[in-house]
Amino acid sequence: MSLITLTTDFGIKDHFVGAVKGAIYSELPDAKIVDITHSISPFNITETAYILKNAYKSFPKNTIHIVGVDSELSVENKHIAILLDDHYFICPDNGLISMIASEIQPTKIVEINIHNHISTSFPVLDVFVKVASHIARGGSLNVIGKEITDYKKLIEIQPKTNQRQTIIKGGVLYIDNYGNVISNIHKRFFQKIGKGRPFVVSAGRYRFKKIFNRYNEIVDLTLPEEKRQYDGEKLALFNSAGFLEIAIYRSNLGTVGGASTLLGLQYRDTVTIEFEEIVKPEFIPIT
Amino acid sequence: MSLITLTTDFGIKDHFVGAVKGAIYSELPDAKIVDITHSISPFNITETAYILKNAYKSFPKNTIHIVGVDSELSVENKHIAILLDDHYFICPDNGLISMIASEIQPTKIVEINIHNHISTSFPVLDVFVKVASHIARGGSLNVIGKEITDYKKLIEIQPKTNQRQTIIKGGVLYIDNYGNVISNIHKRFFQKIGKGRPFVVSAGRYRFKKIFNRYNEIVDLTLPEEKRQYDGEKLALFNSAGFLEIAIYRSNLGTVGGASTLLGLQYRDTVTIEFEEIVKPEFIPIT
Amino acid sequence: MSLITLTTDFGIKDHFVGAVKGAIYSELPDAKIVDITHSISPFNITETAYILKNAYKSFPKNTIHIVGVDSELSVENKHIAILLDDHYFICPDNGLISMIASEIQPTKIVEINIHNHISTSFPVLDVFVKVASHIARGGSLNVIGKEITDYKKLIEIQPKTNQRQTIIKGGVLYIDNYGNVISNIHKRFFQKIGKGRPFVVSAGRYRFKKIFNRYNEIVDLTLPEEKRQYDGEKLALFNSAGFLEIAIYRSNLGTVGGASTLLGLQYRDTVTIEFEEIVKPEFIPIT
Repeated sequence: MSLITLTTDFGIKDHFVGAVKGAIYSELPDAKIVDITHSISPFNITETAYILKNAYKSFPKNTIHIVGVDSELSVENKHIAILLDDHYFICPDNGLISMIASEIQPTKIVEINIHNHISTSFPVLDVFVKVASHIARGGSLNVIGKEITDYKKLIEIQPKTNQRQTIIKGGVLYIDNYGNVISNIHKRFFQKIGKGRPFVVSAGRYRFKKIFNRYNEIVDLTLPEEKRQYDGEKLALFNSAGFLEIAIYRSNLGTVGGASTLLGLQYRDTVTIEFEEIVKPEFIPIT
Repeated sequence: MSLITLTTDFGIKDHFVGAVKGAIYSELPDAKIVDITHSISPFNITETAYILKNAYKSFPKNTIHIVGVDSELSVENKHIAILLDDHYFICPDNGLISMIASEIQPTKIVEINIHNHISTSFPVLDVFVKVASHIARGGSLNVIGKEITDYKKLIEIQPKTNQRQTIIKGGVLYIDNYGNVISNIHKRFFQKIGKGRPFVVSAGRYRFKKIFNRYNEIVDLTLPEEKRQYDGEKLALFNSAGFLEIAIYRSNLGTVGGASTLLGLQYRDTVTIEFEEIVKPEFIPIT
Repeated sequence: MSLITLTTDFGIKDHFVGAVKGAIYSELPDAKIVDITHSISPFNITETAYILKNAYKSFPKNTIHIVGVDSELSVENKHIAILLDDHYFICPDNGLISMIASEIQPTKIVEINIHNHISTSFPVLDVFVKVASHIARGGSLNVIGKEITDYKKLIEIQPKTNQRQTIIKGGVLYIDNYGNVISNIHKRFFQKIGKGRPFVVSAGRYRFKKIFNRYNEIVDLTLPEEKRQYDGEKLALFNSAGFLEIAIYRSNLGTVGGASTLLGLQYRDTVTIEFEEIVKPEFIPIT
């Protein structure tokens, strides 16, 4: 039995997803297919990278992840298959793997070359499914591609710090289903740079001096229950994926709005963290 | 093989659903996972209760239903596992089970206490999946929780009647995919109170003297086919789940609008049924 | 093991899809269920026909396709089960099968008559699942229905040509997830009528003299990479399903818009192809 996941920008109305699943079952009658998502914004590689990074880790080793976002083959957009962290990824070489691969070194990367025999305008259906089936049957990556050592990097998704490490400058990576605003600043990077110093998070015109670890931590349990009214309050927290998130407590993007609409924050807006500078005591010479 | 369903407000874009499925397959490689829905309005317990009540009954006995709506653990929001009608439910104790449990007495309820070992901001992934896996492997509820006898009740979802039983006062519970307006008045309650008396249904400024059992029943088959024009007509019917529904015949919420938009009816609006009073003949004394 | 697909206008929020899957697993514990789509515009038969035609072919032979669009039983809307191209279809007889059946003759059609024993307002759940289970267990179509020889035709979905075959008149059949505008003109029909003659495609106020076979074909590889700026350019192509499509290169319906919004093209708008007339040399009598 093989487990195959799908992450695409196909949407859930068109025939694309159904056709791909039909093709997988035609090749592998016993496969288990899991939709990670088909609602990626068309051609959005950053969104794909964020979602894939946070989803793949829960799957068992040897799961095969097919990624169909901006996957039309061209001289600028090769198709690759990657073995990384004991998972297989079949995807275009457009940078979406770099968010995962920035932390874990790929074991093997091949540039898929079975296209020589296939002319197609729907490569996920006609090429990626064939590659996945080959891997699922225990086939080697070398049979379906030529080994390469590098892959395209997405530069924008990494936050930066200055030389004195007093500031982290990141950006909005993703807006989730609740309208929460997720930055590219990971808790590990925050801890490494901050080293426990006091800080101020800035996002739009809002400032936060505390980063929670769960939404409910803003609730003050020493107050009587009827005074615990927090719906609509804004907060900064590290979300379950480890990224700094600006949220509205119990918000609903569809009705009152989430942090994204209420605070006016959008994809690619700047999020910064300024740390207090630790001034080293200087010996002042006695004059 | 175990059958596990998911009902959440996670949406279908984020990584949440994929991550939960990956975790289930990591624990139970042979599981079958069914999405009931991930499109619950954020934190909406009434919607969850309505959808879950109407979906769970079609599943085989011993199906495990994971419900991830408003599921962050807090002192006010415990996690529970319930055996009810031979189905297992793993959910927060926030009232969503009360619509099902109002008709069928739970066989067993436990307050989940494996949290003592798990610190998490994503309890569906880190706790509910573990509980589901335990149950799927034949484990006892008592191992993962402490038996309790009560659960939180949702009061608003039950319609009311007056002492003389001349009126049923209910409310809009749910707006479905077609824009149909579904009330909390069930056919059984209508029949018990109405006892066959004539009635008038009121919803907004609309009145109905007849409740159909199928949409097509408004079609008058004695008319010639070209005269059967009912598209856009409003009607009251008991829907396939048994609830009183105000509908527009063959409506499309996305284009012309459904009953909700065309009649201006919203979630929680009042729906009433007035019955004719049966006046008992009185013996008038001869003076 | 049986493979069953679902194509409906139920949407993904209501309990309908979950209930149907639960019923299938209750009958067939080993079934594999694939969602083709549940996002058909309510009652839209043309959309259903387009999606189903393009999805079903990827599935293995003997797959059972349940179609729940406009499926309430009435004297004008029978339920049928069809064996066609070694696939089974269970659907209302409202024309949706005619797009597939126009090219491939059905092997067998029956009008389902097990309704005599079932009173329901949710026929997909109560009738179609039973028929699917019967077929999946190897049962004969004749047991669940009466053989018929004809089915309802959808006339609007076929493009037309004039007697001199100088023009193809078609229409917009479908708008896809990227906002691409898909016509009912298939490459085979275009080639049969056009016979290689020069042509002009007209859609709204736009004209195209070339039809591509892949989106990337508009990229001029002889230009240096930094000059290859095609985002937002409009093009005509035969899509992966073989239909003439008007597209915007790398468009996003959710942000900048797709061809449908940018070019103002809608479902049922006219798309025409005019071919150059080949004037046969005439022998002009010498006077």
